[in-house]
Amino acid sequence: MPTLTAFAASPDRGRGHARDFRVRWAREEVGAPYTMRYLSFAEMKEPAHLRLHPFGQIPTWEEPGLALFESGAILLHLAQAHPGLLPEDPAARMRAIEWMFAALNTVEPPIVEREGAILTERDQPWFATRDAMLAGRVRTRLDALSRRLGEGEWLDGDFSVGDLVMVTVLRRPAGASLVADDPILAAYVARAEARPAYRRAFAAQAAVFSDGPPAPPPVR
Amino acid sequence: MPTLTAFAASPDRGRGHARDFRVRWAREEVGAPYTMRYLSFAEMKEPAHLRLHPFGQIPTWEEPGLALFESGAILLHLAQAHPGLLPEDPAARMRAIEWMFAALNTVEPPIVEREGAILTERDQPWFATRDAMLAGRVRTRLDALSRRLGEGEWLDGDFSVGDLVMVTVLRRPAGASLVADDPILAAYVARAEARPAYRRAFAAQAAVFSDGPPAPPPVR
Repeated sequence: MPTLTAFAASPDRGRGHARDFRVRWAREEVGAPYTMRYLSFAEMKEPAHLRLHPFGQIPTWEEPGLALFESGAILLHLAQAHPGLLPEDPAARMRAIEWMFAALNTVEPPIVEREGAILTERDQPWFATRDAMLAGRVRTRLDALSRRLGEGEWLDGDFSVGDLVMVTVLRRPAGASLVADDPILAAYVARAEARPAYRRAFAAQAAVFSDGPPAPPPVR
Repeated sequence: MPTLTAFAASPDRGRGHARDFRVRWAREEVGAPYTMRYLSFAEMKEPAHLRLHPFGQIPTWEEPGLALFESGAILLHLAQAHPGLLPEDPAARMRAIEWMFAALNTVEPPIVEREGAILTERDQPWFATRDAMLAGRVRTRLDALSRRLGEGEWLDGDFSVGDLVMVTVLRRPAGASLVADDPILAAYVARAEARPAYRRAFAAQAAVFSDGPPAPPPVR
């Protein structure tokens, strides 16, 4: 059975923010089983794992004849190997893939940058000034996304791997409070979170923490 | 003929750092013609362009029956549509695509973050402290990449779209001076820049500026 790696002690303690969650969710959408292998932070930097992932991160994916790192690549592989996450029509298929790149390369970077500042610069004298700037950059992306989504249910036709990645990006704490201010995006995320595959994947990763997920941090 | 959009007044003034260059290079590698359409910053935010690119950026790609935004998606489309940028073997093909994601999602973000700080925070009292931290994060990624590349000519077998994207990422000014300190990575970038397709694409984008590209900015 294919094996996915994840944090043994995820910093989010099971709130679905670690990148293995994206793969768990995709795997539930296509209805294909997988097994998990959990790694400590020390194990992630050991030679055995660095052979699988040169940057010493999670997730990695192993199946007979193929080992992959980078959640984007793993997701694309799963979406191409199983029906359910990409349209059949070649042009529609590329547009769904385009939304995956847009989520990872256009929407996520300013959110991750704000997240990094909140984690590492919160006590610095410059934090308030920088955070206002960083939140503004996130908002610019969210506003453009919201305008494009408009009254659509998903980004381009049926639910696709592009929506899956975009929703996990919008759920990140440093963007989620801004998403909540936008009714179009908030409803889009809620629609995705209501999918049975999402709920199964979320429960599976939350169950790793016997005491359950904590309350979200106060990010505004 | 397919049409690629680019900045009419690229901030790099033709040094190959705008993201249309990645597509130009790929198109030269596969030997397929294309035509350019140049946009002012104002035109990029107008409804006609926002229909093509919801975030109002470049590049976009238009061919009969398909319009795409996001350079990663455009590159994947070209690499799948023409021989020369992806191996035939399915597992090797996914590994080449994985390196494209690694370039865009693991190596590029800390370089772009440092670039942003240099552009917008250079005169702030905190700049030196933050820049040391940001340069350290870039170096962590470059060290891991250098260890993996080792004595290899390219990242995984023959030159692929993964190498193409990685090299354009390593050329960005906020990473290039750190790349220059690493003989393995410096030689890797030089090998790519010596490819005839790279040189044709570079000349084509530099020619947009009649006065030629300026000296690189002093980033260290």
